[in-house]
Amino acid sequence: MKFMDKFRMIVEKNNSLVSVGLDIDKQRMPIFLFEEEKDPFFVFNKSIIDATKDSVCAYKINMAFYELYGTKGFDILERTIEYIPKEVLVIIDGKRNDIGNTAKMYAKGLFENLKADAVTINPYLGFDGVKPFLDYTNKYSFVLCRTSNKSAGDLQNIKSGNVPLYENVAKKIKGWNSNGNCGAVVGATYPEELRKIRTILGEDITLLIPGIGQQGGNIEKTVKYGTNKEKMMAIINSSRGIIFAGEDRDFADKARNTTILLKKSINRYR
Amino acid sequence: MKFMDKFRMIVEKNNSLVSVGLDIDKQRMPIFLFEEEKDPFFVFNKSIIDATKDSVCAYKINMAFYELYGTKGFDILERTIEYIPKEVLVIIDGKRNDIGNTAKMYAKGLFENLKADAVTINPYLGFDGVKPFLDYTNKYSFVLCRTSNKSAGDLQNIKSGNVPLYENVAKKIKGWNSNGNCGAVVGATYPEELRKIRTILGEDITLLIPGIGQQGGNIEKTVKYGTNKEKMMAIINSSRGIIFAGEDRDFADKARNTTILLKKSINRYR
Repeated sequence: MKFMDKFRMIVEKNNSLVSVGLDIDKQRMPIFLFEEEKDPFFVFNKSIIDATKDSVCAYKINMAFYELYGTKGFDILERTIEYIPKEVLVIIDGKRNDIGNTAKMYAKGLFENLKADAVTINPYLGFDGVKPFLDYTNKYSFVLCRTSNKSAGDLQNIKSGNVPLYENVAKKIKGWNSNGNCGAVVGATYPEELRKIRTILGEDITLLIPGIGQQGGNIEKTVKYGTNKEKMMAIINSSRGIIFAGEDRDFADKARNTTILLKKSINRYR
Repeated sequence: MKFMDKFRMIVEKNNSLVSVGLDIDKQRMPIFLFEEEKDPFFVFNKSIIDATKDSVCAYKINMAFYELYGTKGFDILERTIEYIPKEVLVIIDGKRNDIGNTAKMYAKGLFENLKADAVTINPYLGFDGVKPFLDYTNKYSFVLCRTSNKSAGDLQNIKSGNVPLYENVAKKIKGWNSNGNCGAVVGATYPEELRKIRTILGEDITLLIPGIGQQGGNIEKTVKYGTNKEKMMAIINSSRGIIFAGEDRDFADKARNTTILLKKSINRYR
C-alpha cells in the first residue's frame, strides 16, 4: 500500500495526527522495569504501543537509542516494529545520508528489511544522496529542512541573498517530490519558519513536525501553519513528553492520557 | 590515548596516510566466499585487514553496509573492529546527526561501545548536534564539509555573498575545534575546494579525504592541497578501488598491491 493511502486511512480511523516517538532512554524509563523484567526495553515499547495505538497515526523510532545497544538494540528495534499494528505508520528517524551508492544500502535496510513506511534523511549531500530513498515510490522520505533544536540556525539560517538555507532546502524538496513521496522535517519550535515552509511546499507535501511537548512547540501555531488547507499532511510528533509522562507503574496510562490530550488539542485547531 | 598521538604513531610506523574502507558490498565481493564460507563478510574483512594492516594508517567502516544486515550486520561490525590491530585507527563513517539529547546516544554508541577512534558527522543541525561528539576529547570527529559526490553542490555550493556553504561550514569547523578534535570530510573529487578548505582550516586540523580510486580523485592534488605544511593531517581513503581490486581467490593480494601502490603514489608527493 502507498504511504499516502495508509496515512489517510489511519488518520480517518484514529482521528489523529499524533506520532509517538519510541525513544528508549534508560535514564528516563521507569526503574521497576529494569528490576523486574528480562526484556525491559521491549516491554516498555509494547506497553506504550498497547496504550496509545488507537490514538496515533504513527510511531517514530529514533535509531540512535537502539544503535546505542548494538545487536541487542537492533533486535529490540526489529521486534518493536513487528509489534506495531499494521495499520499504523512506522517512521524510522535515522537522519541517514551518504553518497548515492551507499545511500542505496541505507534505503534498502530501512524500507525492505525493517519495513519502515517512512524515514528521515539529511539533505547536505544533495540529490544523489536523496534519490535512492525516493526510488521507493510506495514509501515516504522526510528531508530535514528546519530542525527543532536551538542551534538549528547555525547552517539553516545562512542567507543567500535574502533567502535562508532552510527555505532553499524547502524549494529543493518541492523539486524532489516528482514521485509524490518527498516530505520535510520542520520543528514546531520555529512557527514562523514552519509557516514559510508550508507556503513554499504547497498543499501536497507532508510535514513531520517534532518539537511539541518537552521541546516546547506551540500546538495552535503548529496545526495552523503546519497542515494544509484540508488540515492534513502533517504528522506531529511527541516523544519524551508522552512516553516519560509517568515514571512509575502507571507510565503507560499516563502516556495514553497525554497522547489523547495532545490529539484533542491538535484537533481543536483542525 | 589521544587520537592525534595514535595517528602520528601509526603514520610513522607504516609511513602511510592511506585509509582502507571496509564496505561489505555483497554484489562486488568474491562469489566463492559465499559458496564456501559460513561467515563470508567477516572472512572478507579479516583477509583485507591481514593483507593491508602494515600499509595503512586507518580503516574506515561505513555503517550503511552493516546496518543493511540488521543484528547480523552489527555483529560483523563489532567483530571487525575487534580484529583491527590496536595501533591502527578505526574510523566509523556513519554521518550521524541529531539534536543534542539524541546525538549524545550516537556518540556514546560509537565511541564507548564500538570503541571508534574517530567518526564522521553531518553538520546540518549546527553546534548542539556536533558538541556531544566533540565532548569525547580523546576521539576525533570529522564533519562533512565538501562531499565527494556529483550533486554535492546542491546545498554546499549555495552562496552567501561570495561564500559557498561549504566554506562557511569550514569556518564553523575551525570554530568548533577548541578541543583540537574537530576535523573535516572533503572529497578528493573537488581539488580546488580542497585547497580552499585547507587554507581556511590552517595547519592543525585533520582532513578525511574520500574519493580517491573508484570515484576518480587526483592523487597529486589531493596530497598537495589536502595535507598541511609538514605533509600530515590528512587521511586519504579508498574503499571500492582497494577491496574490490580482485574478485577471485587472490582478492586480498590484489587489495594489498593496490594499497601499497596508493601509499607510494601518495608518498611521492609528501
